[in-house]
Amino acid sequence: MKPEDTKIQSLGPAKIQNPIITRQGDSPGFRHFIDNNEFVRVNPFVMDTADSCEPREVTFELAGPRSKIYFDPTKLKAAIVTCGGMCPGINSLVRSIVLQLHHIYGVTNVVGIKFGLQGFIPKFGHDIVELTPTLVEGIHGRGGSYLGMSRGSQSMEEIVDSLERLNLGLLFMIGGDGTLRASRAIVEEITKRGLKTGVVSIPKTIDNDICFVSKTFGFQTAVEEAAQAILGAHNEATGAPNGVGLVKLMGRMSGFVAAHATLALTEVNFCLIPEVEFDLEGERGLLKHLEDRIRDRGHAVVVVAEGAGQNIFTEEDLGRDASGNLRLGDIGTYLKKRINQHFEGKNIELNLKYIDPSYLIRSVPCNSNDRIYTGFLGHAAVHAALTGKTGMMVSQWDNHFVHVPVELAIKNRKKVDPEGSLWRSVREATGQPHMVNE
Amino acid sequence: MKPEDTKIQSLGPAKIQNPIITRQGDSPGFRHFIDNNEFVRVNPFVMDTADSCEPREVTFELAGPRSKIYFDPTKLKAAIVTCGGMCPGINSLVRSIVLQLHHIYGVTNVVGIKFGLQGFIPKFGHDIVELTPTLVEGIHGRGGSYLGMSRGSQSMEEIVDSLERLNLGLLFMIGGDGTLRASRAIVEEITKRGLKTGVVSIPKTIDNDICFVSKTFGFQTAVEEAAQAILGAHNEATGAPNGVGLVKLMGRMSGFVAAHATLALTEVNFCLIPEVEFDLEGERGLLKHLEDRIRDRGHAVVVVAEGAGQNIFTEEDLGRDASGNLRLGDIGTYLKKRINQHFEGKNIELNLKYIDPSYLIRSVPCNSNDRIYTGFLGHAAVHAALTGKTGMMVSQWDNHFVHVPVELAIKNRKKVDPEGSLWRSVREATGQPHMVNE
Amino acid sequence: MKPEDTKIQSLGPAKIQNPIITRQGDSPGFRHFIDNNEFVRVNPFVMDTADSCEPREVTFELAGPRSKIYFDPTKLKAAIVTCGGMCPGINSLVRSIVLQLHHIYGVTNVVGIKFGLQGFIPKFGHDIVELTPTLVEGIHGRGGSYLGMSRGSQSMEEIVDSLERLNLGLLFMIGGDGTLRASRAIVEEITKRGLKTGVVSIPKTIDNDICFVSKTFGFQTAVEEAAQAILGAHNEATGAPNGVGLVKLMGRMSGFVAAHATLALTEVNFCLIPEVEFDLEGERGLLKHLEDRIRDRGHAVVVVAEGAGQNIFTEEDLGRDASGNLRLGDIGTYLKKRINQHFEGKNIELNLKYIDPSYLIRSVPCNSNDRIYTGFLGHAAVHAALTGKTGMMVSQWDNHFVHVPVELAIKNRKKVDPEGSLWRSVREATGQPHMVNE
Amino acid sequence: MKPEDTKIQSLGPAKIQNPIITRQGDSPGFRHFIDNNEFVRVNPFVMDTADSCEPREVTFELAGPRSKIYFDPTKLKAAIVTCGGMCPGINSLVRSIVLQLHHIYGVTNVVGIKFGLQGFIPKFGHDIVELTPTLVEGIHGRGGSYLGMSRGSQSMEEIVDSLERLNLGLLFMIGGDGTLRASRAIVEEITKRGLKTGVVSIPKTIDNDICFVSKTFGFQTAVEEAAQAILGAHNEATGAPNGVGLVKLMGRMSGFVAAHATLALTEVNFCLIPEVEFDLEGERGLLKHLEDRIRDRGHAVVVVAEGAGQNIFTEEDLGRDASGNLRLGDIGTYLKKRINQHFEGKNIELNLKYIDPSYLIRSVPCNSNDRIYTGFLGHAAVHAALTGKTGMMVSQWDNHFVHVPVELAIKNRKKVDPEGSLWRSVREATGQPHMVNE
Repeated sequence: MKPEDTKIQSLGPAKIQNPIITRQGDSPGFRHFIDNNEFVRVNPFVMDTADSCEPREVTFELAGPRSKIYFDPTKLKAAIVTCGGMCPGINSLVRSIVLQLHHIYGVTNVVGIKFGLQGFIPKFGHDIVELTPTLVEGIHGRGGSYLGMSRGSQSMEEIVDSLERLNLGLLFMIGGDGTLRASRAIVEEITKRGLKTGVVSIPKTIDNDICFVSKTFGFQTAVEEAAQAILGAHNEATGAPNGVGLVKLMGRMSGFVAAHATLALTEVNFCLIPEVEFDLEGERGLLKHLEDRIRDRGHAVVVVAEGAGQNIFTEEDLGRDASGNLRLGDIGTYLKKRINQHFEGKNIELNLKYIDPSYLIRSVPCNSNDRIYTGFLGHAAVHAALTGKTGMMVSQWDNHFVHVPVELAIKNRKKVDPEGSLWRSVREATGQPHMVNE
Repeated sequence: MKPEDTKIQSLGPAKIQNPIITRQGDSPGFRHFIDNNEFVRVNPFVMDTADSCEPREVTFELAGPRSKIYFDPTKLKAAIVTCGGMCPGINSLVRSIVLQLHHIYGVTNVVGIKFGLQGFIPKFGHDIVELTPTLVEGIHGRGGSYLGMSRGSQSMEEIVDSLERLNLGLLFMIGGDGTLRASRAIVEEITKRGLKTGVVSIPKTIDNDICFVSKTFGFQTAVEEAAQAILGAHNEATGAPNGVGLVKLMGRMSGFVAAHATLALTEVNFCLIPEVEFDLEGERGLLKHLEDRIRDRGHAVVVVAEGAGQNIFTEEDLGRDASGNLRLGDIGTYLKKRINQHFEGKNIELNLKYIDPSYLIRSVPCNSNDRIYTGFLGHAAVHAALTGKTGMMVSQWDNHFVHVPVELAIKNRKKVDPEGSLWRSVREATGQPHMVNE
Repeated sequence: MKPEDTKIQSLGPAKIQNPIITRQGDSPGFRHFIDNNEFVRVNPFVMDTADSCEPREVTFELAGPRSKIYFDPTKLKAAIVTCGGMCPGINSLVRSIVLQLHHIYGVTNVVGIKFGLQGFIPKFGHDIVELTPTLVEGIHGRGGSYLGMSRGSQSMEEIVDSLERLNLGLLFMIGGDGTLRASRAIVEEITKRGLKTGVVSIPKTIDNDICFVSKTFGFQTAVEEAAQAILGAHNEATGAPNGVGLVKLMGRMSGFVAAHATLALTEVNFCLIPEVEFDLEGERGLLKHLEDRIRDRGHAVVVVAEGAGQNIFTEEDLGRDASGNLRLGDIGTYLKKRINQHFEGKNIELNLKYIDPSYLIRSVPCNSNDRIYTGFLGHAAVHAALTGKTGMMVSQWDNHFVHVPVELAIKNRKKVDPEGSLWRSVREATGQPHMVNE
Repeated sequence: MKPEDTKIQSLGPAKIQNPIITRQGDSPGFRHFIDNNEFVRVNPFVMDTADSCEPREVTFELAGPRSKIYFDPTKLKAAIVTCGGMCPGINSLVRSIVLQLHHIYGVTNVVGIKFGLQGFIPKFGHDIVELTPTLVEGIHGRGGSYLGMSRGSQSMEEIVDSLERLNLGLLFMIGGDGTLRASRAIVEEITKRGLKTGVVSIPKTIDNDICFVSKTFGFQTAVEEAAQAILGAHNEATGAPNGVGLVKLMGRMSGFVAAHATLALTEVNFCLIPEVEFDLEGERGLLKHLEDRIRDRGHAVVVVAEGAGQNIFTEEDLGRDASGNLRLGDIGTYLKKRINQHFEGKNIELNLKYIDPSYLIRSVPCNSNDRIYTGFLGHAAVHAALTGKTGMMVSQWDNHFVHVPVELAIKNRKKVDPEGSLWRSVREATGQPHMVNE
């Protein structure tokens, strides 16, 4: 295929100013328009020749089976650990890793560590579980985590002691940002001790906020469930005079769940995410706009990611924890209180229903598409691990499964780009203005 | 980011032969292993400078709003037509186009053409429908096609006559391979007449077999539903002595639905797709393997795409149509007959249940993720059309929305690569051998 | 409470002729109107005094635990067998029986017979399964039958030999009409041999056609699924010019599934059941009415129970089986053929989509309400069996769980009453006329 | 049929003490065992002869069409109002009433009152909605209430003024206990004024706590949704070390939703309802039992109806409202606090997840079975109303649709009988003891 094959026909030069510019002014989502020189490569693959003198492009290794592997499968013992918060698809992923190890590579000695990193630490007294094909056969239909999870860090020395004691050649770690950091520390400790234990991670976050992962597993399932909650909120809002449905969704640092669920069910009037500040008070604040909406239409739906609007809390609102740090504000119940106060102050009857579906979203079994996805992730992780790769995570990058150094993934947090097409679509779908006072 | 930032750590050189090679031999799905020089670009975007003398890379235009547009929205009249077979998400897509035209660009004159290309042809007498925001507000929750569809070609002259008569500036065509071909012919006729009517297509196929589209809308929903049918087949198979659940799924030319649904529900023992030939009889044929499976395990699930196994029909099986052409064989009922005959011949009781869920799959409302996806597609189509682009389709290519010349999309059919990771995963999940006799 | 407490206030005497009479004439569903002397008892319970000379009313024993039981639980061995066709809820019912036996009565020796009555007959070689709480813990979430089922009769002598050999004190039989008949024969054989083995049945039929059972388990789940299929048919019908969605549902002798599903989704235009004859041809026949509907509205949905319309087949249509008996006609594909022929004959384009969702309906897991219901049925069966009751089935009769002699249940088949409120509601909902020529 | 036809066979006299008695002692659910003289009538119908001198039995009028009606349909204007809290099925019921009035009786003048009784009161300024078949055609698929609802009482005089002003012949009131009381007051005011307006109510309560209604509409749907929430709680509980899933469900006065949902998903360890007191502290209190469960099994699920455990609040816990009355305690968050405190006090790590799914349960569309049910209720209400019945509600009593005087229904609240089979089954399913200290 030649470059000119992809050229698009045109009816003539575009000369009229786009009315979006006039209507939305200069605000997040409507500042960047596509220029004529912006393109997407048709072919994302690169064949790198080893003897090239030129620096190769910035690329990721393609995932998949290699013709040569590092470990002798018959002598290998592998472990799986699931860390952090719950997310749809964990059981399906564990099953995929176990079956791939057994059926494809003949690795029959696979164990599960209970309750995350706690499971490595003797004082917690958690059992080690033998993971056989029979045991994992039916777990993909269940929500939650069969192995159990826990949050928080543990001593790296004790963990690696445990790896040695268990005689593990491979460790698969399923977890988010904290787990990826832990995996790096574990690899450092392994290297320091001169061990030959591989550590391969699979990124897990229902918030979809890990860099260099196009979409984390479980995210699609979460969006389906979140959309149901918004539908409920819409029914509550329209079912009472001056009804407001206020839904808090996941997203401490990034608003992907809130933004996608908003697009799935275009009944949302205000979507609030951590990446885009908003004011509560003032001419352009949320309360004023919500009041206008209620006067005009009699009902409204507000979706708020749990990490949104931290700017609007006062120090007094938040309080300080034992160490003297400001606590994270609970934006959901805070908005509920402030909205109710605002309308009481104006003497307008309001029927606000506050919905927090988080546990119901994260604990469901994953849908079929996430099941397929976790299947591929598990296969890619096993192929990489058997080849001797370590200190890496598997990832789907623009539809292709690749190997990503853990180092890269933890440098930053993936966020909704306020100038990108996702946020623009949210603003188009909700019709919400940019709610910041001058 | 530099190239070396993405380098993966290794425990040491991989020297052991991969046991997959021994186990599966040289057969589709297990021939190609990943080499050390295969990579995926981290950055798919290219900023092309107009004055570059070098030929630019093969790229697609990035979709999205431009700062200048071609049409005056206040004077523009647009039409939408939905063609071919049913697919989840059509109503959601129509709604997205209508709302985007109205609310974002202020194009209030939008009509719907009833029952596909028939709607343009006076003799059918179908009405033209005015598409207002109020009318389309609730249609995304419904399956089917609000506008109605039809298959088959119509006279291009009459269609363009109709475009002129309706005074249309824009035509959005939602359809598959045939519709894309029609759109090209319409653009040619428009050009011949010197009209200034833009034609933008949105690719629709539940089979997911259009080139340069990573995944068509509705496909994910179809896979969810297909997986439910397979689960039913599994329950039927295990619920009776020597039970076989035989499920026919969509896929005339390509087996994407069958392959994905097989991966979603790893209860399938044999997955048959058009891209991979199989024999029915003989030492390596399906019947022999199915017989072994029944003897060993007492039940089996077979998934077959409607276009699979055309090689196994005799001329007598198929018959010829009025024009003397061989008819397409109905592989589902044929397999049902042949499998039953085979076991009767061997005097083995068999309980075969044949399930054809096609109409139930394609007529459901799309799920939330397809709703989000059709939302983006609709927005991209409107942005492109308003800018004066024509003869193109919008597409998601590796997660990015782009403009693709219709020309390119209709050159070939997208197919499951028998040497790629999808088919490999299917074979790993089913454990099925390559069923071709020497 | 006194009789006069339930008297209803009235605005005055009703003197105007009910317009339904005029509109529908004298046809099934509209012949019987409620008279002023028709009442329903508030209290269905009767406390019978043993020494009463008067014959007691016709009543059923109330189900539930008795203070004295017949069997010593610690020495008792019980078996469960599931017979006939698949139905949602079988696994949930098996689980309920097993857990109740174990946890409430301490009966720990419970076995499962594989594949229905075949499982008792040595020549089939099916294993006996030990049913422990751990084994059945998770099966209620699965469709199908964990134990497997089979149709057809087996030798009563061999079955009772097997009961003796297995040393069974109790046999729980889950099945339909045929199974109830078998249970009676088994009880006779047991009695003849002077054994003390109790046989308690739980009625199972997705058709809901067993007498003295208000609603069989799984029926509600089946109606939910059938309604989805009808929604698909509606989408198919409206999505094409002159579209007809034709759905075949379960119901060999009775049309409960078809009638209820029709009421759940009031998109059906013609509902055909075995209890109400209809003509195909003629001025009042289905084809004429369907043609009118297509001309007027452009689409139609037809629901047909599999046993409907046997009157319209000719002997030639049906053919005779090996024994010379007329075969049952396949009304679904027959209607498909005849409708298509009719419209071809009239030269009217028709897009008929034929949907047969039977296997997909009967193989799903039961919903929560059927789970609760099977829980109660299992408990009632265990309480009855432990008390020494035999030759009976448990049943929900007008919301109360009771014991019913098997004898009574097999005398007749429960049918939709063409003069009752169910069929009247179907005719009101569809607007269909009585399709019989004079 | 004769009384002796229903006699059940017995293997012999039951002489062994039922082990349940030993195991559960004398506590709610296990005190009442079925005696030999307890029966259920086979035939609930009574044909009452008017000239009988004997007092007739306590019966309800059978619902359904009468051959004579009271109102002239062509001159009749009817209204529908939906009051109180949300419940699945309201829209389906409204649709059923409207379509029945239009299509069966030819009453074309039907209006909807917005936002409950507020809609009658001029000062609120709510519009009256004309309810046409076209308008209501698609609303049964939606959750919430199309007409909107409100709580609280309004002036009876103003309401009846409004009935007169609107010239209404019929008012259909959909609502719970409060609405039924209001309907009685409206009928009194109508009678006082000598008007001829009929008032027919349809009982609506998601709590299923109205007397003389076997099961209210929407209840089954609510139980399905509640069971999903419990499944989520179970996954949360098993997914963390010492996990507790605490689910608050509807039920201010009665625990039907909690009890049924507990039976649907037998993963619940403690079910708490208003009808059965429990202690928090002490040797037999919930906290002690929960602690034992956590020590033994590491996880637990607790379901609590919102009205349960009011006895455990101190006056200080509850506080008093403006009028000096004790507030209702929020048992959900209270239990959360107390359980956490208890385990902190014992220095045991606990991971309690609190789930309150109420708004998500009540706002969903009703399932197909509730759709069928609301269809029948709507038909029965229209038949009764047209015949001139007033001051009554329609009801399903033991599977039969009947007329019940409103008077009767509001005398008491329907409650779970602590000695009945429902509570016994809950205790059997959870294994929970009676948690009251001596």
